[in-house]
Amino acid sequence: MKNGNGIAEKSKASCAMYLRAVHDSLDILGGKWKISIIGALKFGNRRFKELQREVNGITAKMLSKELKELEINELVKRTVFDSKPVTVEYELTAYGKTLDGVLESLMTWGIQHRKRIMVKK
Amino acid sequence: MKNGNGIAEKSKASCAMYLRAVHDSLDILGGKWKISIIGALKFGNRRFKELQREVNGITAKMLSKELKELEINELVKRTVFDSKPVTVEYELTAYGKTLDGVLESLMTWGIQHRKRIMVKK
Repeated sequence: MKNGNGIAEKSKASCAMYLRAVHDSLDILGGKWKISIIGALKFGNRRFKELQREVNGITAKMLSKELKELEINELVKRTVFDSKPVTVEYELTAYGKTLDGVLESLMTWGIQHRKRIMVKK
Repeated sequence: MKNGNGIAEKSKASCAMYLRAVHDSLDILGGKWKISIIGALKFGNRRFKELQREVNGITAKMLSKELKELEINELVKRTVFDSKPVTVEYELTAYGKTLDGVLESLMTWGIQHRKRIMVKK
């Protein structure tokens, strides 16, 4: 510790609080798949196969695992329809929709990042 | 494909664009460490050891790897000071600071998520 004055301590405390909050989010959204799955569901309900097509590169096993975790955290709802053959649909819950700000900020940054790289090339 | 009408196709195209942008961001920020490191640097320049203390649970090897990747992507700048002993400091570049919106949204969501869980317990 470089010093013990009030401002430095306060800044250290808010940094820790800030990092804890960011960490809490990443605990739930960890890895790249969950955010992509939520992103796809933003555009409407999807069946398993549709999600697998849209979330590029994900395996069926991984998609199934990720969807289960999203369900446990109440971000995604799974509905089974009694059709023939049985169909299963996934949708964002109201709570899942509260992630909209996170997704928007990632999208906005991703767009400008791609532009920046293109200019450099 | 359920139908081939214009609206559905358009929605599919914007979904793909949206997911690509989110994916681009996650490619750069992948995993939980990079975002936490950037979060810590938001509060001021840090030495390696300081970062390791603040980013809970990261090993020295992993921190070094992550910092190198952040440097390559021009989000973090590393400065060596010719002191005795030599000190190395890390700081966010101007480009790194453009991630502020992403971090803010993750922090905001993390705070309300913790509150939600507390109420449930």
